[in-house]
Amino acid sequence: MQAVQASSLASAGATFAAAAAGVSSQKNVQMSAPVCRRSATKASLGNFAGLRRVSESRSETAAFSQPAAVKRSAKKQGIRATAAVKAPSKVSPEVVDKSINAIRFLAIDAVEKANSGHPGLPMGCAPMAYVLFNETMKFNPKNPYWFNRDRFVLSAGHGCMLQYALLHLAGYDSVKTEDLSQFRQWGSKTPGHPENFETPGVEVTTGPLGQGIANAVGLALAEAHLAARYNKPDAKVVDHYTYCILGDGCNMEGISNEAGSLAGHWGLGKLICLYDDNKISIDGHTDIAFTEDVQARFDALGWHTIHVEEGNTDLDALRKAIDEAKSVTDKPTFIKVSTTIGFGSPNKANTHGVHGAALGGKEVAATRENLGWPYEPFKVPDEVYANMDKTDAGAEYEKDWESALAKYVEKYPEEGAEFKQLISGKLPEGWEKALPEFTTDSAADATRNISQTVLNAVANVLPGFLGGSADLAPSNMTLLKQFGDFQKATPAERNLRYGVREHAMGAIANGIHLHNSGLITYDATFFIFTDYMRAAIRLSALSEAGVIHVMTHDSIGLGEDGPTHQPIEHLASFRAMPNIYMFRPADGKETVGAYKIAIESRKTPSILALSRQKLPHLPGTSVEGVAKGGYLVEKDADKPDVVILATGSELEIAVAAAKELRGEGKKVNVASFVCWELFEKQSPEYKESVLPKSVKAKVSIEAGSTQGWHKYVGDGGKAIGVDHFGASAPAGALYKNFGITAEKVVEAAKASL
Amino acid sequence: MQAVQASSLASAGATFAAAAAGVSSQKNVQMSAPVCRRSATKASLGNFAGLRRVSESRSETAAFSQPAAVKRSAKKQGIRATAAVKAPSKVSPEVVDKSINAIRFLAIDAVEKANSGHPGLPMGCAPMAYVLFNETMKFNPKNPYWFNRDRFVLSAGHGCMLQYALLHLAGYDSVKTEDLSQFRQWGSKTPGHPENFETPGVEVTTGPLGQGIANAVGLALAEAHLAARYNKPDAKVVDHYTYCILGDGCNMEGISNEAGSLAGHWGLGKLICLYDDNKISIDGHTDIAFTEDVQARFDALGWHTIHVEEGNTDLDALRKAIDEAKSVTDKPTFIKVSTTIGFGSPNKANTHGVHGAALGGKEVAATRENLGWPYEPFKVPDEVYANMDKTDAGAEYEKDWESALAKYVEKYPEEGAEFKQLISGKLPEGWEKALPEFTTDSAADATRNISQTVLNAVANVLPGFLGGSADLAPSNMTLLKQFGDFQKATPAERNLRYGVREHAMGAIANGIHLHNSGLITYDATFFIFTDYMRAAIRLSALSEAGVIHVMTHDSIGLGEDGPTHQPIEHLASFRAMPNIYMFRPADGKETVGAYKIAIESRKTPSILALSRQKLPHLPGTSVEGVAKGGYLVEKDADKPDVVILATGSELEIAVAAAKELRGEGKKVNVASFVCWELFEKQSPEYKESVLPKSVKAKVSIEAGSTQGWHKYVGDGGKAIGVDHFGASAPAGALYKNFGITAEKVVEAAKASL
Repeated sequence: MQAVQASSLASAGATFAAAAAGVSSQKNVQMSAPVCRRSATKASLGNFAGLRRVSESRSETAAFSQPAAVKRSAKKQGIRATAAVKAPSKVSPEVVDKSINAIRFLAIDAVEKANSGHPGLPMGCAPMAYVLFNETMKFNPKNPYWFNRDRFVLSAGHGCMLQYALLHLAGYDSVKTEDLSQFRQWGSKTPGHPENFETPGVEVTTGPLGQGIANAVGLALAEAHLAARYNKPDAKVVDHYTYCILGDGCNMEGISNEAGSLAGHWGLGKLICLYDDNKISIDGHTDIAFTEDVQARFDALGWHTIHVEEGNTDLDALRKAIDEAKSVTDKPTFIKVSTTIGFGSPNKANTHGVHGAALGGKEVAATRENLGWPYEPFKVPDEVYANMDKTDAGAEYEKDWESALAKYVEKYPEEGAEFKQLISGKLPEGWEKALPEFTTDSAADATRNISQTVLNAVANVLPGFLGGSADLAPSNMTLLKQFGDFQKATPAERNLRYGVREHAMGAIANGIHLHNSGLITYDATFFIFTDYMRAAIRLSALSEAGVIHVMTHDSIGLGEDGPTHQPIEHLASFRAMPNIYMFRPADGKETVGAYKIAIESRKTPSILALSRQKLPHLPGTSVEGVAKGGYLVEKDADKPDVVILATGSELEIAVAAAKELRGEGKKVNVASFVCWELFEKQSPEYKESVLPKSVKAKVSIEAGSTQGWHKYVGDGGKAIGVDHFGASAPAGALYKNFGITAEKVVEAAKASL
Repeated sequence: MQAVQASSLASAGATFAAAAAGVSSQKNVQMSAPVCRRSATKASLGNFAGLRRVSESRSETAAFSQPAAVKRSAKKQGIRATAAVKAPSKVSPEVVDKSINAIRFLAIDAVEKANSGHPGLPMGCAPMAYVLFNETMKFNPKNPYWFNRDRFVLSAGHGCMLQYALLHLAGYDSVKTEDLSQFRQWGSKTPGHPENFETPGVEVTTGPLGQGIANAVGLALAEAHLAARYNKPDAKVVDHYTYCILGDGCNMEGISNEAGSLAGHWGLGKLICLYDDNKISIDGHTDIAFTEDVQARFDALGWHTIHVEEGNTDLDALRKAIDEAKSVTDKPTFIKVSTTIGFGSPNKANTHGVHGAALGGKEVAATRENLGWPYEPFKVPDEVYANMDKTDAGAEYEKDWESALAKYVEKYPEEGAEFKQLISGKLPEGWEKALPEFTTDSAADATRNISQTVLNAVANVLPGFLGGSADLAPSNMTLLKQFGDFQKATPAERNLRYGVREHAMGAIANGIHLHNSGLITYDATFFIFTDYMRAAIRLSALSEAGVIHVMTHDSIGLGEDGPTHQPIEHLASFRAMPNIYMFRPADGKETVGAYKIAIESRKTPSILALSRQKLPHLPGTSVEGVAKGGYLVEKDADKPDVVILATGSELEIAVAAAKELRGEGKKVNVASFVCWELFEKQSPEYKESVLPKSVKAKVSIEAGSTQGWHKYVGDGGKAIGVDHFGASAPAGALYKNFGITAEKVVEAAKASL
């Protein structure tokens, strides 16, 4: 009964507010604000059949039980059976207009009060955002973490007041009126860019342009993967869309092309991106730097593309575009929406002046006049709240899903148990027993190879474990041998093939993690190429996404590829980054120890820097030691003559130097500093036990920048490292020529004694 | 006389070797190897008219004096008047085949000897590379730095043996046979990836994928800019093409899309890129991760595109494509060349097994057999050398150009003098007098604003000064107000509009610098977004490109934009990077001092971290002090009670803390640590004068990671900083809440006393 034509309803002039209008096709809705209940939609939830769509013509939004013909599967058809234009509901055009203007003015007023922020995007994007949040998306504002919600990403994160206004109007507790009025202030829930860790309802942290669209690809991948693994022909427990609004800036960034290429390749049909084509960037009109044909580019990337020519006013065109997007199931959809930045501002619309600064009192007043908005700042008319609040609708969505999930668990107990365990976000009991064990007798091996053994072992016991490399799988040793490739036809598989796209890989991995469905993901490339994905890794850290970054070829030890491929400053550069564990394990035991922490640390990402070359398993290393970050692997005395500190492949050198010094009668302790961040968390007493203040002769050795080591070796010690670029030669020649040798350690120790 | 059809000549079966065949249309060529001199081309160089093209049909390769109808100009026509297929010269097909196989086997043999490297690309790309180097490009092997040479970039740098083979065969002294046999060994001229600073003839350092194509855009931009500024209707002193070979990996990287979008936007008609479409990457067939329509994407980016379907054997198609590319003057050209990786290897061709590993003795033998190559390793038949050596042709090219330049200078003395000064690479005498002066009385200002004053001042006296921002010009304050924008129609202007494409910006800036024509270029974005371009900045440093990276909004001082925009670890991360100056000036004097060094340092790039907020000009700062990297701005005593160290905006806080401590009777020195790298170059005595060992109470304060400061504050001191992510709030609130205050410095100093 909702499959009426948008145009007919839009012109009907009905004046009552209907909650959750046009979003819920078959759900019972109940509003706290005065509403007209739609009795026809009050379907019984008595059994699975009862959960099926009420109207055939709305099948694409049914939470469960789509007919086989339209479900996503390896052999899915390209177009959904029915793609009716979405009903705009029985909301009067006046209330729709008011609702859209409410979004605009909340943004205008918040930016004005902060005298800081970006009003232009929310003003231009309010119509498409309204259609998304009020008529399209399913979510539960009172439980922002409800598993089966549609995901929304504002890739153009500077326009965050758009998102805060939407969350507020939809009824999220995270964004009350007082939060809006505290926009961009210390301690507020409404920071200057959307931050998932500050504001429930914000899925991912955006602002650095292009990250969001790549995160959205990760969210859509997670959905496609889980849907393929857990949904049954008669029961869908995973079924949501991922929506993204991105701007000119996002489209100029290379990361968006990388992510777009992958999304097209993977055929992520439930990813729908709306491009705010407003032709204005900070430097002025996009004509000065951005004249490519963006839509044609996305066509070339394998997307379905649509152009909405009048995004400021033509809601029906927006609705039709979104419905068309949903009807295309084998390709992601890119909707170019031509808008006017700062729409409604008589003197600043369509200029970069409205992009990133408050309008100013005079222009705010002129805009109020122009758009017919008589309300005081932050005031939202009741009928807008009534129209946009999703409290009751959201509760119903979740209740229906919970009920369906219960039935699923009953009918498919094994999958149900695994699924519930997975989405709980908790690791399965005893998972760590799967970790391989290494002893001093184990064959010497590169830590990248040991890493592969670990990855394959844990993938057997962690149902949510998946990941891949940026076209270096056979070098990074990251293939999960028991699984196939995640591809368009095989979305249930777990090896991700990112191609040579490090930046998108990192951001997609963040998206997979932030799907918050218990998936644990790793990505991989050469350690040097973290330079290509550094912005994404920083966002793993900032947004508390416990992604595992598997970075092999960790030093000059990679040899012949030369200085373009040899990390020098990278360990130091990540040790300086907050909330990330930078591991450089020395052997099998330490690699296992690093993985144990990385897997357990769901809110702190980890980087594992792994060797290309073979390393022996040293007597003193241990899984437990890694947890301390820095620990003694050889101990001669509480107060030795010398302490030698090392990480990774240089621990072997440290041990050799210690042996030599002992031969000369010295007492030597050797410490592995596998993870500085964990060492910093230890007690002062523990630190003193590893690095006694009274011992002046402390020598560190690491095949990389010495930056930061002075904190540990102290004024009397010496840091041996590589403070220049590498060179192309076999690894042995480099170690020798660059002085990364036991001889140099001995020399330095003696000089410090 | 050279405008014959390729096909007719190719089948003519002439057996003698002609030097510089098909490259030089109007130049006199002379070979050391047996050649047939082409008397018709021996044009007199008596006057400018004499330099005009011999044949109308080859006008596009004339060094000077193209007719008005075909010259590049603001109103240039899209297609050159004539675009005849290039003559393949009177070289027999056998010798052509042998020459191509010589390239292949030099690569095969070098990789085999090193047992390390990438033979697949050279084997597949040898035909297109042959057409480029032997029939198309103009260069002088005995002077690799001849200004007007065609530039070649191997963006797929792992295939560097292709480039080394070409340089060797063309007669470059940098790659002798013994160098080839030392491929990838310590101290060789033939490192594992092409390095401009190791191997004359290599223009840019490639290997990290996608960088090369972006460098090539920079090289082509430099040519277009200089051509627009210096060429005259009757005299061209700047006239060369930029060629680039890139692979699947380059095309997957986001940076190539960014750079491609800009090249299309700028209409760089003399940029010709050949895409080695071999369908194989390290993980296997590109089908697993790369199924977009690359050619359609480049169409969308505004390029002219061509597909050569048989790149392994169809030389005429390659020749025609390159000629067509040259005939299109208002767009860059993308030639997709379908090839077979490892062409000729009977068992490994068309597999990823041939990508990055030696073929192995057995397969090398089989490939010799298959391609009919009876020669021992590294042996090149005489007729191949005779065919490919460009010693004499190159000398002629340069001689002609020198002679033309002399005439140009005579006719246009002012432009001529400026041009010669520019390409000498030396700074104009007395340039530094243009630097603005600031005193303690100057109005407090943000260092980003001071930076703009400096940029505008030096642009007046440095004819090669140009640059721009990644869509943040009004925030970075980087606009050269006296100049317009470099655009398709206005290539003589000096403001570069990069759009939101930080990564390509950095790599394009490297390309502009490495054009080696005296251009000094800067790029700009927020300091945080160095994360997006870190790989390119690292290549500035590695390849000795003295690019100036202007990075504003340098700390939590940017305030409301929040943690996604607040650099924390960035100063530390660049201080760990070799060969780059990381400046954080505190005021006007220090900003000027930093620019003075940055501009003078043509082989070391600089980063200037500049404030968003206003800063006072402090009494003790100086331009000269900056040159020391760390220096005392306030000195109470040789051995004070306390030394306070700070940079940038925190120097003001340090001075305030010193005042307070003095009020309590302490002797305090205050040091500015504006550039650690320069401080490290000072003598031990100087360092001791700034940081006396006997003073234990050393306190550093910097609004960023404390990593590395312990080296300077020592065991007894304390580093105050921000070792966590920032937050969204006004800057003042952040400084207070994060403890970046004079109070905390005083507290720490007292605790250390």
